[in-house]
Amino acid sequence: MGSQVSLRAVPGLPLIAPGDDLAQLVADRAALCDGDIVVLASKLVSRAEDRFVEAADVVVSEAARALADEVDKEPWIVELILRESVAVSRKAPGVLIVRHRLGFVSANAAIDRSNVGGEDRVLLLPENPDASAAALCARLAELTGVRVGLIISDSFGRPFRVGTVGVAIGVAGLPAVWDQRGGADLHGRTLEHTVTAVADQIAAAADLVAGQAGEGRGAIVVRGVQWEAAPGCAGDLLRPAEMDLYA
Amino acid sequence: MGSQVSLRAVPGLPLIAPGDDLAQLVADRAALCDGDIVVLASKLVSRAEDRFVEAADVVVSEAARALADEVDKEPWIVELILRESVAVSRKAPGVLIVRHRLGFVSANAAIDRSNVGGEDRVLLLPENPDASAAALCARLAELTGVRVGLIISDSFGRPFRVGTVGVAIGVAGLPAVWDQRGGADLHGRTLEHTVTAVADQIAAAADLVAGQAGEGRGAIVVRGVQWEAAPGCAGDLLRPAEMDLYA
Repeated sequence: MGSQVSLRAVPGLPLIAPGDDLAQLVADRAALCDGDIVVLASKLVSRAEDRFVEAADVVVSEAARALADEVDKEPWIVELILRESVAVSRKAPGVLIVRHRLGFVSANAAIDRSNVGGEDRVLLLPENPDASAAALCARLAELTGVRVGLIISDSFGRPFRVGTVGVAIGVAGLPAVWDQRGGADLHGRTLEHTVTAVADQIAAAADLVAGQAGEGRGAIVVRGVQWEAAPGCAGDLLRPAEMDLYA
Repeated sequence: MGSQVSLRAVPGLPLIAPGDDLAQLVADRAALCDGDIVVLASKLVSRAEDRFVEAADVVVSEAARALADEVDKEPWIVELILRESVAVSRKAPGVLIVRHRLGFVSANAAIDRSNVGGEDRVLLLPENPDASAAALCARLAELTGVRVGLIISDSFGRPFRVGTVGVAIGVAGLPAVWDQRGGADLHGRTLEHTVTAVADQIAAAADLVAGQAGEGRGAIVVRGVQWEAAPGCAGDLLRPAEMDLYA
């Protein structure tokens, strides 16, 4: 890793609408340099991909209705959460934590109700964030002529600890984890627990700059992290349920 | 939050030894400005506070010996893990995750075996990281004449996700969480889930710069995060066990 890292918001980005060329909008404003990592809030990508859903278009199943009653949430929201997930992880009044179809565990399947323009409208995650990241990364390289990494981020709660942190749900161009196992410490002792979730740490750092309230700062350029081009993906950050003591 | 944030390692820090004046060592090298946040890897603070333990000095209880056998770890290490914790959270061969006496959940009670100078020697966390953070923060302000925040960080694994991330185990001077509940989104809709673990995000960002292998980069200066002086502490980041669906 570098000894100096800087993060800045891409200035002047408009509110993203379905069909927008997000890579072009970023490339025009970001003055990207070789080795930069672009972190895009998932909602920017979801908006560009038109992942909006209107309440009126959701047919609610009996299972969703019963679960909605149990957890005290709106039935159409619970229907969408179930469609986006493969299993319920934990539930309680006001709380519905699921294993998303993409593999990660999150509250409400990371469905977004803020800044979508109405109570009867939500925004789902991108259909395939790793594929979106790869396409955006390739297009940014094409537009700018420089080597960049790309992370699509979201803010997740966690067990044990209060508050949300940025995590990587899509990764392209750079490694998602940084594996130092087998390396040596200062005294020559073999390092044991040294798999670092570098893409999650970059997403958390970017979230510091992006804030939470609006779209305006949803694209962040991270400069100074040393990385080698590698076929990383957000899936590398997921522990399979059968290997997870908290599943 | 600011629209530009930078992080840099404090250069030229020596390997910290028991009794060292860590605040003085940082103040002499960091050129701190008003509003900077200093992130110190916990091992620096533990070294200064002489939290080393030698295997030869550990009397192993029967309970520790039985648990060590069960999880396939060295008995003296398990004895120390149990002394540092209030409950076992999960166990499996090779894995011992506990609720630390300080309240957080971590593998091996965050006892450090890297870079301590021998197989028969470990480094415990500081006795009271929030108190250490407060003392270091006050001393840095005294030495430099500027307002700084201070975070003591460690690298923790997590449920569901692979790899470690930096987290805050001691906080002083700044808020540990940033609570926007009751604020409004771009469309005037009340924000729901907007408690951000800002101190954890700062610790994760700092860990990007600090790397994992050595002491040399264990002190990081974060510049550009907007914060108001507040009596934050790392305890603000901990969800009580009785309110945790994964406890």
